[in-house]
Amino acid sequence: MLFIPVIVSVFAIIFAVFLIRQIRRAPRGSGKMIAISNYIREGAIAYLKRQSKSVAVVAFVLFLLLWVFLGFKIASGFLLGALFSAAAGFVGMMVSTQTNVRVAEAAKKGLPPTLDLAFRGGLVTGLLVVGLGLLSISGFYLLVQDLKPLIALGFGASLISLFARLGGGIYTKAADVGADLVGKIEKGIPEDDPRNPAVIADQVGDNVGDCAGMAADLFETYLVTMVAAMILGALIFPGESSIIQLPLFLGAVAILSFILASFLVKLKKNQSIVFTLYKGLIGSSLLSALGFIFVINNSVSSIDLSFWQLYVPALMGLVVAGGMFLITDYFTSKRYQPVRSIAEASTSGHATNIIQGLAVGLRSTALPVVLISFGILVSFWLGGMMGLAIAVVSMLSLAGMIVALDSYGPITDNASGIAEMAGLGKEIREVTDSLDAVGNTTKAVTKAYAITSAGLAALVLFSAYAQEIQALGVKMLFYLEDYKVLIGLFLGGLLPYLFASYAMTAVGKAGQKVVEEARRQFKEISGLMEGKGKPEYGKCVDIVTKAALKEMVKPALIPVAAPILVGFLLGPEALGGLLIGSVVTGIFVAISMTSGGAAWDNAKKYIEEGNLGGKGSFAHEAAITGDTVGDPYKDCAGPAINPMIKVLNIVALLIVGFLV
Amino acid sequence: MLFIPVIVSVFAIIFAVFLIRQIRRAPRGSGKMIAISNYIREGAIAYLKRQSKSVAVVAFVLFLLLWVFLGFKIASGFLLGALFSAAAGFVGMMVSTQTNVRVAEAAKKGLPPTLDLAFRGGLVTGLLVVGLGLLSISGFYLLVQDLKPLIALGFGASLISLFARLGGGIYTKAADVGADLVGKIEKGIPEDDPRNPAVIADQVGDNVGDCAGMAADLFETYLVTMVAAMILGALIFPGESSIIQLPLFLGAVAILSFILASFLVKLKKNQSIVFTLYKGLIGSSLLSALGFIFVINNSVSSIDLSFWQLYVPALMGLVVAGGMFLITDYFTSKRYQPVRSIAEASTSGHATNIIQGLAVGLRSTALPVVLISFGILVSFWLGGMMGLAIAVVSMLSLAGMIVALDSYGPITDNASGIAEMAGLGKEIREVTDSLDAVGNTTKAVTKAYAITSAGLAALVLFSAYAQEIQALGVKMLFYLEDYKVLIGLFLGGLLPYLFASYAMTAVGKAGQKVVEEARRQFKEISGLMEGKGKPEYGKCVDIVTKAALKEMVKPALIPVAAPILVGFLLGPEALGGLLIGSVVTGIFVAISMTSGGAAWDNAKKYIEEGNLGGKGSFAHEAAITGDTVGDPYKDCAGPAINPMIKVLNIVALLIVGFLV
Repeated sequence: MLFIPVIVSVFAIIFAVFLIRQIRRAPRGSGKMIAISNYIREGAIAYLKRQSKSVAVVAFVLFLLLWVFLGFKIASGFLLGALFSAAAGFVGMMVSTQTNVRVAEAAKKGLPPTLDLAFRGGLVTGLLVVGLGLLSISGFYLLVQDLKPLIALGFGASLISLFARLGGGIYTKAADVGADLVGKIEKGIPEDDPRNPAVIADQVGDNVGDCAGMAADLFETYLVTMVAAMILGALIFPGESSIIQLPLFLGAVAILSFILASFLVKLKKNQSIVFTLYKGLIGSSLLSALGFIFVINNSVSSIDLSFWQLYVPALMGLVVAGGMFLITDYFTSKRYQPVRSIAEASTSGHATNIIQGLAVGLRSTALPVVLISFGILVSFWLGGMMGLAIAVVSMLSLAGMIVALDSYGPITDNASGIAEMAGLGKEIREVTDSLDAVGNTTKAVTKAYAITSAGLAALVLFSAYAQEIQALGVKMLFYLEDYKVLIGLFLGGLLPYLFASYAMTAVGKAGQKVVEEARRQFKEISGLMEGKGKPEYGKCVDIVTKAALKEMVKPALIPVAAPILVGFLLGPEALGGLLIGSVVTGIFVAISMTSGGAAWDNAKKYIEEGNLGGKGSFAHEAAITGDTVGDPYKDCAGPAINPMIKVLNIVALLIVGFLV
Repeated sequence: MLFIPVIVSVFAIIFAVFLIRQIRRAPRGSGKMIAISNYIREGAIAYLKRQSKSVAVVAFVLFLLLWVFLGFKIASGFLLGALFSAAAGFVGMMVSTQTNVRVAEAAKKGLPPTLDLAFRGGLVTGLLVVGLGLLSISGFYLLVQDLKPLIALGFGASLISLFARLGGGIYTKAADVGADLVGKIEKGIPEDDPRNPAVIADQVGDNVGDCAGMAADLFETYLVTMVAAMILGALIFPGESSIIQLPLFLGAVAILSFILASFLVKLKKNQSIVFTLYKGLIGSSLLSALGFIFVINNSVSSIDLSFWQLYVPALMGLVVAGGMFLITDYFTSKRYQPVRSIAEASTSGHATNIIQGLAVGLRSTALPVVLISFGILVSFWLGGMMGLAIAVVSMLSLAGMIVALDSYGPITDNASGIAEMAGLGKEIREVTDSLDAVGNTTKAVTKAYAITSAGLAALVLFSAYAQEIQALGVKMLFYLEDYKVLIGLFLGGLLPYLFASYAMTAVGKAGQKVVEEARRQFKEISGLMEGKGKPEYGKCVDIVTKAALKEMVKPALIPVAAPILVGFLLGPEALGGLLIGSVVTGIFVAISMTSGGAAWDNAKKYIEEGNLGGKGSFAHEAAITGDTVGDPYKDCAGPAINPMIKVLNIVALLIVGFLV
């Protein structure tokens, strides 16, 4: 029976390969477009190579440590997770860099074929994330027939994801800020102008941050949640293979639903872009909900939970995922009050724009957290901790579609840039821009989705941690009256704050280096401003690559060092508190940053459409400030909190045996 | 024996009255200065009258509800707490408005007498806060010989404090933002220019926000912590009056130490202002530490805790308070790297100033939380929950001195304003400004101190809540594996975010009304810009008064409604989680806002001193943006979280009987 998820995931990967060949057949346009696209591609590959080298060193050391302390099986699980995670990000990004130029070319034929091609590019990444995810878990599980090494599998994926989100986030925002500061503000040339030496680095950033980073992030979320649910099943229902393997079958159903629903994403006449994307999500949810009936009905036969006790939580998972989509859309879309309130506040100046943006960010945490609490309440009430685990796994059934919808964002963003640099007409830019604006919201939705599932997965991991302590023969309850638990809660609550602070400073430092290099080139290369001299794009790419990798070390250490320090110095109770504390503040910090940042971005776009004075007005200037502040918020610090929380939890699970 | 704290607190109040008479004897300067000072005073009184009227309605309704549901004793405790809290704020503010003009006059004679008079004005507020605080608890306890009504006493104080912090915070920042936007930016006239119609409202704001609001806040912190420690003592050691009353005697020792140490605050030759203030704090700590030896030695004779098990926690309380002072000084003073890094980031523009300020704010939470955790660890390890309670009470022994150091801030701020408006010489302004800059840091320290003691007091209150449930005969542990506790943690974590968001929006809305009114006056009153027409100061004062009172309703409802809703809908476990959740996120939100805000403010001051381009430079413009963003952060949303957490906890304690 376990071959079914393996076969389904292989099928997803084959479908992805088929799509890649299809995309490759699409025309690439003129020679100039191809040249620019090659620059971007080379930069992206150069970055990922260098990142892989640095991360490989860390991974190898950890591999040896795990081997010595926990055995070869565990260590190999870790390596496998790291490799698959890197692969998902790498291939997804490669496809993205091949699709962008073709999307720019397709835009000559209008909106529907452009959306179609861009979505197909995103679809590849979505298929790879869930396909490789399910394949690695079910395949590895088939091979070792043991759950412990699966934790290490998750650890490998989380670690890569942490580096990818942090490094990619610092890269993309440093390049963005650097290119804007020197190009737009100091030299007064438009965005994506080929004279700007940092312009290619900026485009590369979209790929390594928004595409590779995001894919690794969702891959990690997928993997760790699945693993946590399986381990929990084994701890609550020892030996009941039908419930332990349930997540794998739910995953297989979800992949099939996702593939079927992907055919729904076609732009019909009189339909908006957002509605077209909604169709895919709704189709994916409904098909999954149907398929879950059979899978869950099949698995509860041998345990003392009824069908409804697991099926309703599964539906709750879908409801929470859908609800998060709607809520994030409300807080980050130009159509609603929050973004417009920021735009209006911009008319009074920079400070009021920032104050309103911060207020919107803070407020945007309320509904998601109420929704999550409701989901926890219903799932737990019906199916206990197992119910919650099933709800989170079910929530993940939308992961493929959400990654697909998200990845199409950087593809169209790049396509816009290529169109601009290659000097294509204005109407092409309009097509790509209209797709790009929706991409902002889908990006925010993905992040909210990722942090929500991360928060819930972390609760499942915490429960596995607590159960593991019980299984080791120690009776331990984590109660709030225990001062060690309280201290753990405070110290855990601190981690997202410290982490976010370092991530934000890192963007500033790396951005400063880009600014210096771009300024140098404008000064030293003669005829650059007149379009005669040729900027050294590679130098900027190189500098931001080095800076991003250097700056990501300090924040990346936090989630590895903290649980080890607290666990060994203050004991397992404090470590338990630390895990929950990091989730409690982490979810608020992350959502306020990702939604707030996207709202700032779209407030600027709203003004640029001609509202409240339009481009070049005082309000627009203030809105640019807000957008710049929102950048490290929404693309670096905020989303990186998700893998950080997960690494924390997994490290705790790995060391728990030494603590009690 | 219980008469001792009563006598000591009456002595403090008498000393305050003596100081008031002394201050009144100081010269008030020219007719113009007196006129301006009267304007400010009238505005402040008008605001407090109107605020009292609104709050009186709420208080009366609550008084009736408490009477019906919990009896007359409880209801009268509530009323008493509310009255004393209002009195501490009111009298303190009255003294402040009488001292300001005299400080402006004293500045003609140089720095030492100016500091002396300003500190004496602050001293009155400090004496009143701790004097009235100790008097109300010990007197009321002598009267009713029952602890339950003391909770209600704390509730009354917290409620007033919530309104005072919120209303005063919205007032002061709305007036500030409004005056700056129209005066400095639109009309290009200097700060505190008498032609600006909002200038008096701005000065009034310093008094109602920084003086009355802060005094009510610290009064509440003092009262609630004392009460929580006494109740906990009674729950852990039933009937042991020596331990139950211990907090009162510690308080009495602290007041005597404070009064003695206040004589140390004299500016000697070659001493810096900061050092002079440090002398008072260190003296107060050392004398308290000495006095505590006798009091604690006396009280442990009849219980199974040794002298060291309570004395070391008491010392820890002083260490935490002192440590908070040093940490906040580091993060908010112009002398150190954090503020300078914000100033340097300003040279790249508005956005980088904001990003760096946010990063500093986030990071400034780390050391305080580690220090608090260390304090909890040691105190708990030695003396259990009682140890923690004693540590918090001991921390409060510095409350008087901290209030005194804080209140001198708005006094000198006002003195600067009066000097400017009355057209006094530049050298006078220099004297008052140098005092004012130190005031920014002492203000930040007070807030960090208040939120720390609030966090710790909330833990004591939570423990009292948990013990109360046990005392009602229900066995209940709040463990993290319980989904209701988890949901409570999330919902509790949400409250500071929601509350801060509303508070920040409130400042924006009220500020907008001030802007409109000031613009109208400049347009309609002929000759205003030329200094011939007379601005209608009262209109602005009136408008901002109404707006502040209206806008404070929504956020003020949160901490009253949330525990009732969660308690009755989800049960006492979820309510317990809610209490801890609100402390965990609240402490981070509050510290990051108050320290971050002060750092922004001082970064601007650092540039204004001539660094990085000085006044009027591009960096200065960016720094002004940061300062404006920091204003609602540090003076409204951030500090109001302290009473909010306390109201939450006390409401929970009051309704717990109905829940189990």
